Amino acid sequence: MTLYLNLAELLGARIEQGLYRPGQRLPSVRALSMEHGVSLSTVQQAYRMLEDSGMVSPRPKSGYFVSDHRQLAALPAVSRPAQRPVDISQWEQVLELVRSTPRQDVIQLGRGMPDIDSPTLKPLLRSLAQLSRRQDMPGLYYDNIHGNLALREQIARLMLDSGCRLGPADLVVTTGCHEALSCSIRAVCQPGDIVAVDSPSFHGAMQTLKGLGMKALEIPTDPVTGISLEALELALEQWPIKLIQITPSCNNPLGYIMPEPRKKALLSLAQRYDVAILEDDVYGDLAYTYPRPRTVKSFDDDGRVLLCSSFSKTLAPGLRIGWVAPGRYLERVLHMKYISTGSTATQPQLAIADFIAAGHYQPHVRRMRSQYQRGRDLMSDWVTRYFPPGTRVSRPQGGFMLWVELPEHFDTLRLNRALLEQGVQVAVGSIFSASGKFRHCLRMNFAARATPQIEAAVRKVGETAHGLLDEALIPA
Amino acid sequence: MTLYLNLAELLGARIEQGLYRPGQRLPSVRALSMEHGVSLSTVQQAYRMLEDSGMVSPRPKSGYFVSDHRQLAALPAVSRPAQRPVDISQWEQVLELVRSTPRQDVIQLGRGMPDIDSPTLKPLLRSLAQLSRRQDMPGLYYDNIHGNLALREQIARLMLDSGCRLGPADLVVTTGCHEALSCSIRAVCQPGDIVAVDSPSFHGAMQTLKGLGMKALEIPTDPVTGISLEALELALEQWPIKLIQITPSCNNPLGYIMPEPRKKALLSLAQRYDVAILEDDVYGDLAYTYPRPRTVKSFDDDGRVLLCSSFSKTLAPGLRIGWVAPGRYLERVLHMKYISTGSTATQPQLAIADFIAAGHYQPHVRRMRSQYQRGRDLMSDWVTRYFPPGTRVSRPQGGFMLWVELPEHFDTLRLNRALLEQGVQVAVGSIFSASGKFRHCLRMNFAARATPQIEAAVRKVGETAHGLLDEALIPA
Ligand SMILES: Cc1ncc(COP(=O)(O)O)c(C=O)c1O
Ligand SMILES: Cc1ncc(COP(=O)(O)O)c(C=O)c1O
Repeated sequence: MTLYLNLAELLGARIEQGLYRPGQRLPSVRALSMEHGVSLSTVQQAYRMLEDSGMVSPRPKSGYFVSDHRQLAALPAVSRPAQRPVDISQWEQVLELVRSTPRQDVIQLGRGMPDIDSPTLKPLLRSLAQLSRRQDMPGLYYDNIHGNLALREQIARLMLDSGCRLGPADLVVTTGCHEALSCSIRAVCQPGDIVAVDSPSFHGAMQTLKGLGMKALEIPTDPVTGISLEALELALEQWPIKLIQITPSCNNPLGYIMPEPRKKALLSLAQRYDVAILEDDVYGDLAYTYPRPRTVKSFDDDGRVLLCSSFSKTLAPGLRIGWVAPGRYLERVLHMKYISTGSTATQPQLAIADFIAAGHYQPHVRRMRSQYQRGRDLMSDWVTRYFPPGTRVSRPQGGFMLWVELPEHFDTLRLNRALLEQGVQVAVGSIFSASGKFRHCLRMNFAARATPQIEAAVRKVGETAHGLLDEALIPA
Repeated sequence: MTLYLNLAELLGARIEQGLYRPGQRLPSVRALSMEHGVSLSTVQQAYRMLEDSGMVSPRPKSGYFVSDHRQLAALPAVSRPAQRPVDISQWEQVLELVRSTPRQDVIQLGRGMPDIDSPTLKPLLRSLAQLSRRQDMPGLYYDNIHGNLALREQIARLMLDSGCRLGPADLVVTTGCHEALSCSIRAVCQPGDIVAVDSPSFHGAMQTLKGLGMKALEIPTDPVTGISLEALELALEQWPIKLIQITPSCNNPLGYIMPEPRKKALLSLAQRYDVAILEDDVYGDLAYTYPRPRTVKSFDDDGRVLLCSSFSKTLAPGLRIGWVAPGRYLERVLHMKYISTGSTATQPQLAIADFIAAGHYQPHVRRMRSQYQRGRDLMSDWVTRYFPPGTRVSRPQGGFMLWVELPEHFDTLRLNRALLEQGVQVAVGSIFSASGKFRHCLRMNFAARATPQIEAAVRKVGETAHGLLDEALIPA
């Protein structure tokens, strides 16, 4: 662990122990630098991290203060999943979620849908329409199996922001990140192999492991710093793990960004034990801080990281365009891609390539980032206000998902059923575990611009949870 | 086997033995009906079959004559593949084919591209453009995992023509037929399982078997009647086959339509040995005869047939929209579909649903069918004219692929390399075999409307083949 992390933990502990009180001024950057014998920038990094986790707030020209402007709910606990590889279950719950079609009469807080109403997205639609009118009808042909070259060039350019220096030949375009994930897993693993995953973990990736016959080994994960490297190392020591599958930047569902030194340490670990890393970066460009965090892939010097991503969260999921940078697994991934869907649909690739080349991508993502950050603050407030006391809430650093932890024996499956009658849907926590953990958790989407309807929906969730808890207290 | 098949075989044999000579008039329908004690319609069916295979031609009001208006090349031999399950190879050759992008300077006779220049396709493009302009942007959302309901309703209607009575709930929309195939195979088989395939067989389906770790057992296949039921039964007796994978209607690459009684017999066989059938119907609607042939699926009464298809050949492959009717495997296929690409792209689904609902599908397909039939006749003539003597040619009954068999030791891989320098590409035969058979065969596409350029390209193929054969005759 590095200096700034140590320092942040120390300060965080002092605040939690009440050494510094809400609203109180914290030691200056200079004072801490002297006290701990570290550089000014190390202290600044530590403070920024505490700021991101909501514990401190800067005031212009007067330094850092313990947050008090808002009552922040406590963070979810560090997960303590099963200690051995398991067969994944929970398909029925996932199916319930993905069977749903967008509907007027249900507020779907459960799905991973970004906001697509921004005017900054309009040029993309124009581009799609124009392509349909072109005489040569480029959208109707089979594309080549790597994907459209112009698009791969644009993706390679975007990836520079996360520290990756790749060329178009290093990339394979896929039908969404889903296909990137399943091709990557199949490229590295055989059925029966053990894959280490963060926990909670994206249900789609876990169902992929299930469908391909892999076993998942869930690793304890911290809601601020991500997968526990200590626990991971123990697991690598103990089990013949083939692949580490993680979402380290703007994690789904927890929203953390794994600190850069930990990303490097994770890579070293993978090198030491000679395992591959599948890095899901689908929310990476939606980090609230600029520049966006570096990927593990950006440090990869021997091609063991397969980076998977898509435009589903940054632009729109209905386009189904993603990509993978498979490192040394390129040939295998190409084969898996070919057998999974043949070539990728041409028209959305061309439209996205146009959109990026014309300079529309960055302004769009910038706008969405700040909208989502506001969405996070609002929805966190609503949860604090409307949910039962003791509810814990994640503190996302990017993306548009909030993770909510209710009291330990709460059953969100029951909650969701009760909610559906009221026209609200959330994602139940158990689908984020291979072994059905997190039954007392749920995930909500704060992508859409806040409206009274959405606040009312969150309130319904909170009040229904209240009701179920009270019920549970009445002796039968 | 049924009456008309028997009769067709008998008449065919008599013609081949020279009992009836080219140009000679054949016995009348009535006379044959009397002679063999069968109905008039049975004789007509038999004649139609001989007509389809090019042996006889009808003359209005005067009956059937032995064909002489054109010298038909001999049909390819019945395949005699390996007698045991093998691991599939040939990925490098397939990769070479699917890596290619449509280019101005290469005439690609090798790929499975339909003609997309027909004006009957224009309403589809209009529909795509209109969808991009709609305020509610339906194309940008995640669809539900089954696929768009309106599209599934239209597909169910189309499938009535092949004798299938299915509802939208029996269908899953996929990203092209490729995804339908791989989800189906994974729904039925485990790695290591044996799958019986027709031979030659579509390379994409075989690479899927390879990628998923299955073994292929190639079954001898007749270029007119399809997979040998006798050989298949022997194989079922001998090996623990899990799945029979075939393209019985307008086969790729051979172009035959398996006669209906044989389709039924195939299903009985599958029932008797309790194996599943994967029926690839991607070219079925492009049969030159109307009504289109029935599918094996249409006879399926216990849900063991997984029917896979797409709009890639009938409309346009760049849309990547296919479907599967998975029978009793629906739940498993849904899971496999979810992990492979999540939901399917929304916009092309909506556009195709509009196109069919507005009545554009049938006129388009009708037009393409007759264009392709003319294309077949022309390209067969060119092959007869420009290829080395002794070349054998398939007699497709639908679709737009011609299978050409050169002398036994000919190497089409060398041919293709020599051709690429001349701006022509064909599909080499070896990719249609699990074990690298058919090296002396090639497949050419006759979808595009005939032009002097295409004739010149076919001529180049023929002349280059001549050249390579002559070379082989010169002692080193
Ligand atoms: C972490 C993560 N990875 C991948 C995906 C799938 O992305 P796509 O829609 O591009 O397949 C999602 C979407 O839910 C996700 O949250
Ligand atoms: C027999 C057969 N099945 C399936 C496919 C794949 O179709 P799609 O492009 O819809 O994935 C093809 C296309 O080449 C084919 O010839």
